[in-house]
Amino acid sequence: MIRQLVIAMIFANLATVSVASSQAAPAQSSAAGFTNTLMPQPSELSTQEGRLAITASFSAATEHFRDARLDAAVTRSLVRIENRCGIFLPTAPQTNAAPATLVVSVDGPGGTIQSIDDDESYSLEITSSSAHLRAATVVGAMHGLTTLEQLIQSDASGYFFPAVVIHDTPRFRWRGLMIDCGRHFIPVDVLKRTLDGMASVKLNVFHWHLSEDQGFRMESKAFPRLTEFGSDGLFYTQEQAREIVAYARDRGIRVVPEFDMPGHTSAWFVGYPDLASAPGPFQIERKFGVFDPVMDPTRESTYKFLDGFIGEMAAIFPDHFFHIGGDENNGVEWKRNPRIQSFMREHNLKDTAGLQNYFNQRLLKLLEKHGKHMIGWDEILTPDLPKDVMVQSWRGFDSLSAGAKNGYTGILSAGYYLNLMSPAETHYAVDPLPDNTDLSTEQQARILGGEACMWEEQTSALDIDSRLWPRTAAIAERLWSPRNVNDVDDMYRRLGVESLRLEGFGLTHISQEAASLRQLSGTQRIEPLRIFASVLEPVPFDARAHQQHANQLTPLDLLVDALPPDPPSRHNFELLVRTYLHLENSGGRAQAQTELTAGFNAWITSRPGILHLMADSPLLAQAEPRAQQLSELGEVGLEAVSYLSSGLPAPTGWKAAKLAVLDDAEKPQALVRFTVIKPLRDLVNAVSEAPSDK
Amino acid sequence: MIRQLVIAMIFANLATVSVASSQAAPAQSSAAGFTNTLMPQPSELSTQEGRLAITASFSAATEHFRDARLDAAVTRSLVRIENRCGIFLPTAPQTNAAPATLVVSVDGPGGTIQSIDDDESYSLEITSSSAHLRAATVVGAMHGLTTLEQLIQSDASGYFFPAVVIHDTPRFRWRGLMIDCGRHFIPVDVLKRTLDGMASVKLNVFHWHLSEDQGFRMESKAFPRLTEFGSDGLFYTQEQAREIVAYARDRGIRVVPEFDMPGHTSAWFVGYPDLASAPGPFQIERKFGVFDPVMDPTRESTYKFLDGFIGEMAAIFPDHFFHIGGDENNGVEWKRNPRIQSFMREHNLKDTAGLQNYFNQRLLKLLEKHGKHMIGWDEILTPDLPKDVMVQSWRGFDSLSAGAKNGYTGILSAGYYLNLMSPAETHYAVDPLPDNTDLSTEQQARILGGEACMWEEQTSALDIDSRLWPRTAAIAERLWSPRNVNDVDDMYRRLGVESLRLEGFGLTHISQEAASLRQLSGTQRIEPLRIFASVLEPVPFDARAHQQHANQLTPLDLLVDALPPDPPSRHNFELLVRTYLHLENSGGRAQAQTELTAGFNAWITSRPGILHLMADSPLLAQAEPRAQQLSELGEVGLEAVSYLSSGLPAPTGWKAAKLAVLDDAEKPQALVRFTVIKPLRDLVNAVSEAPSDK
Repeated sequence: MIRQLVIAMIFANLATVSVASSQAAPAQSSAAGFTNTLMPQPSELSTQEGRLAITASFSAATEHFRDARLDAAVTRSLVRIENRCGIFLPTAPQTNAAPATLVVSVDGPGGTIQSIDDDESYSLEITSSSAHLRAATVVGAMHGLTTLEQLIQSDASGYFFPAVVIHDTPRFRWRGLMIDCGRHFIPVDVLKRTLDGMASVKLNVFHWHLSEDQGFRMESKAFPRLTEFGSDGLFYTQEQAREIVAYARDRGIRVVPEFDMPGHTSAWFVGYPDLASAPGPFQIERKFGVFDPVMDPTRESTYKFLDGFIGEMAAIFPDHFFHIGGDENNGVEWKRNPRIQSFMREHNLKDTAGLQNYFNQRLLKLLEKHGKHMIGWDEILTPDLPKDVMVQSWRGFDSLSAGAKNGYTGILSAGYYLNLMSPAETHYAVDPLPDNTDLSTEQQARILGGEACMWEEQTSALDIDSRLWPRTAAIAERLWSPRNVNDVDDMYRRLGVESLRLEGFGLTHISQEAASLRQLSGTQRIEPLRIFASVLEPVPFDARAHQQHANQLTPLDLLVDALPPDPPSRHNFELLVRTYLHLENSGGRAQAQTELTAGFNAWITSRPGILHLMADSPLLAQAEPRAQQLSELGEVGLEAVSYLSSGLPAPTGWKAAKLAVLDDAEKPQALVRFTVIKPLRDLVNAVSEAPSDK
Repeated sequence: MIRQLVIAMIFANLATVSVASSQAAPAQSSAAGFTNTLMPQPSELSTQEGRLAITASFSAATEHFRDARLDAAVTRSLVRIENRCGIFLPTAPQTNAAPATLVVSVDGPGGTIQSIDDDESYSLEITSSSAHLRAATVVGAMHGLTTLEQLIQSDASGYFFPAVVIHDTPRFRWRGLMIDCGRHFIPVDVLKRTLDGMASVKLNVFHWHLSEDQGFRMESKAFPRLTEFGSDGLFYTQEQAREIVAYARDRGIRVVPEFDMPGHTSAWFVGYPDLASAPGPFQIERKFGVFDPVMDPTRESTYKFLDGFIGEMAAIFPDHFFHIGGDENNGVEWKRNPRIQSFMREHNLKDTAGLQNYFNQRLLKLLEKHGKHMIGWDEILTPDLPKDVMVQSWRGFDSLSAGAKNGYTGILSAGYYLNLMSPAETHYAVDPLPDNTDLSTEQQARILGGEACMWEEQTSALDIDSRLWPRTAAIAERLWSPRNVNDVDDMYRRLGVESLRLEGFGLTHISQEAASLRQLSGTQRIEPLRIFASVLEPVPFDARAHQQHANQLTPLDLLVDALPPDPPSRHNFELLVRTYLHLENSGGRAQAQTELTAGFNAWITSRPGILHLMADSPLLAQAEPRAQQLSELGEVGLEAVSYLSSGLPAPTGWKAAKLAVLDDAEKPQALVRFTVIKPLRDLVNAVSEAPSDK
């Protein structure tokens, strides 16, 4: 148990490995000494000779246009540069550009209310004596400032910006992150640091999912019973909502509120049962899934309520779009209610989809009255809806594509569900407009972008950071950068750098794991557990839902909740095995072999320490079989490397036996799974076996 | 560099070491299997045979009295028990006591406004079938619930409460923590988690230092220019202040606001220069120290302003006490102003102290008008003040004692200054009423307790948690527990447990170090740095102020800011050396020798890794000489252990040479110091040396 932690960190934190397949991103032309650590990649970047040193004389000025938002953004960047470099800078930007090191030239403010039509592009030119950032709008300038911050490098001589010329413009105009604050409440300070993270990777829409069967989270002064009875006291005041909107706007991020209707509305009905299609009383729903409670679309009182409610919300959320949800109405209560059935016959509505369409048409008029565009999930799309309604597709690219062909704008979310616990590379490969699209140019223009979605059945305020980050940065790059920026190894290399930047904003996606392991084990001496945890990740969403019958009140305090999805070990170990298997007899291969062997030994020898820590922790002890398996995986790895390095064949049956061990380790257990099975399988399969006697 | 981290953790996280001097606290009578991990120690505790298992059928009920505050406290405890044990419990307390596992019997609510006269005692009896908590007031019950949470144990069979009988009452009535939010602003969410930490160790006063030369932090609607010009935009709204007051009250904590006057008031004068004794304009003071700006006590307009201001604040802060500061007025502006000089002559005020006394008398009348008792620092104490004015002593026990002899109540803060970066044991040894006190019983009753003080010149929101915790818990025990609870080894053992509980409240005192090291080094592979950092701590306050000419705007982003004061390594290493030197030829001694040798080797071999990480980080590189010294300290340790274990004498001059190395390592460098010098010195001094040839 002596060497393991350091070794395990080889897998966990591998920073850079020289591997044949690691290529520079297409957007990057390299110059001596420049390491591209930008995320997302800019559309055009060329490096120059030279560097701009960051010293106490560094200063910033704005020219042409300035406003409070731009000043605040420049100041924020200067403070971050200060903190990164330990140098006190005069943080108030000047207006006299002449003597400043950094000149920010902006043409104008952009839209009073930020919109999808705002120009977000910028250019940044850094020489050995100065930096010049140019943008048409303040939002463009903010993106440029973020890039500037990401360019900071250091060596023994000090901190500096490399000389570069960047021309950058986003590929998609709608680059969002949805957070479901209904199923588990997320406090304001967590949302703020999330917005900082979003700005860092140039996301521009925070889609705020504010109501669910499990909770109504937004204060209404007109209808106070919504939160009084539907929130467990966990909701945002109007002042807090305005604070979030302002905080987001200051970072170039629009806030699109979602109030899901007519379904997913149990929490509304606890205080206002008359809105529902069935008689009350109602309760806040604790379970997860699709439920019967649904608004009554046949009563005028429903629309009177919604008119008042939407009017009130429209004053808090200035964005042009208003998300009405519209998903997963099972129609059960509509079918059961004779009055509603008779309404459907009277209005010639053939089925519940027809009735929902009627509801949407009425809702659309209310939104228009209050100056809002409608956006909703796939289900809202019916032929009768006007073309300025926008669709967010959870069903997938076919659904989105069909909408575009019918003239509807849309954004993609299928493929970007962070709650599924997929690796970043899976999301990274999903393109809202793949290169084989059959859409015409005009139809393609209707695909506005996409949104990462964080559904919160299995996530709470404590672990949301590690569910969001750094994976969301990979999705952000997909939505910003050119389509041909798609080298997975290079993405992961840069994701490691971005992950540290995100930690600098106070996000806890790195630190929470150790903190949770300390809580679980009741000690600060968690070294063996860290080795164990470093090669584990949560099972996918469906698998957890299947294995654990949890509801909203179930404590999220198990090992699975401590673990980040797609931990660094996953890609790093895969890279190490790939290097070992495919790099012929080089120093790199020998190094990979050393690291693999050391790592496998660490898995084996950490077992007693893990079991010791589990002995007094019933919560941890649920994962005890995994500790045994970790040790077995180490044995498999050691044997495979031993055969591969000696060139000797394994005895007959060896492969089948070892693959069985791997199969066993892949079975559901304690809600966690190993990150290393596939590369181990590659190792085993690469071993040649002695021919059978038969 | 292979074995170091794990070894280093031996020093950093040593959980329990069997050491001869470690004794049970006097308050504890031990039963088989019960480990006392309570902090603070209760005044009476006896353990019984048996345990109360925590299962899903665990339930809670209140009897006799209940209110919303008690219900919330019971629910909060149940949620924590749930999360700790991974069991979903019905969290709403019942009113029918009969079938409940935990019965909370409370006589009444306690004071409408919590005061020093409230009964905070409780008793807790746990058998193998039930738990009964009894208290006269809700605040007493909250203390009992905290103790209950601290009693949770676990083993392979599950989670349980040990059977105990506790009768507990605080030694002092005023147990506070002062936080200076003037010099660096501390956000509301950080204050909230701090209040959770305070409640966990039964502190009952949050002393909120809200104004300083460097910033005025509290919104005034009557005088909006106070924050508009005096806060850099960093202040608490009245709504936030009310939120903090309510949050504190819900945890049995009073909030005493401090508005320091007549000095320390530069920030007031930026918006209201007419309050000052010298002509403006004024600026927010960026430097630290004692400055000239002071209120003009000769003008009626000053008192008119303060009447309005105190009236406004009295409505926000319901506590009976109002802290007026009163410290460190240098009198310079009063001496310079001819009009003030002539006022002093007219009123027969001999010196500036006399004038300040005049000011205090006027202020006292205003406070009385608004229903408040005055509290201030030592300087306010003049013979003319009425006896119900209370003194907070930063000057020390003599000053406090003199006040008590003259009839004034007081609390001690000298000895509890957390910003001095002293070890917990230093604060722990400071008793507001030492057993050799010459005060009469009546005079002793005037010493109400004490307050830990967190002055913020060198601390910001990022690192305040590690400056506060866990050291504040040791001070809290001094103020709550009987005087004879003073075993330092046992205190540190329990402090380690409490530290993990505090982390469970979201405090970052443990996790921030690694996060900051990642930021400083720009990588997640920080293992050698962690070894390095684990035996370093910040230099004392004065030393830092002397070595670094910092002001309010200086970034706090150096290695020193990453390091917690009094890290676990300090006491653990001392304990290990003590065990090695004083335990004769036992297994414990051999084990200590093994651990020491391994640790010293880790210090030596981590050097190249540390230097490698420093190479590209100019901020870290400032501490490069310390990395060299760490390696040298490892060599000294190895040599000493080698001589001591072999029994051979060292050559002549060896000791002097090695002590010189230690002396060198104690010299100021990079604002950090080693935690291990003194025990290393003991090791070296224990070696016998060959007689000199001379």
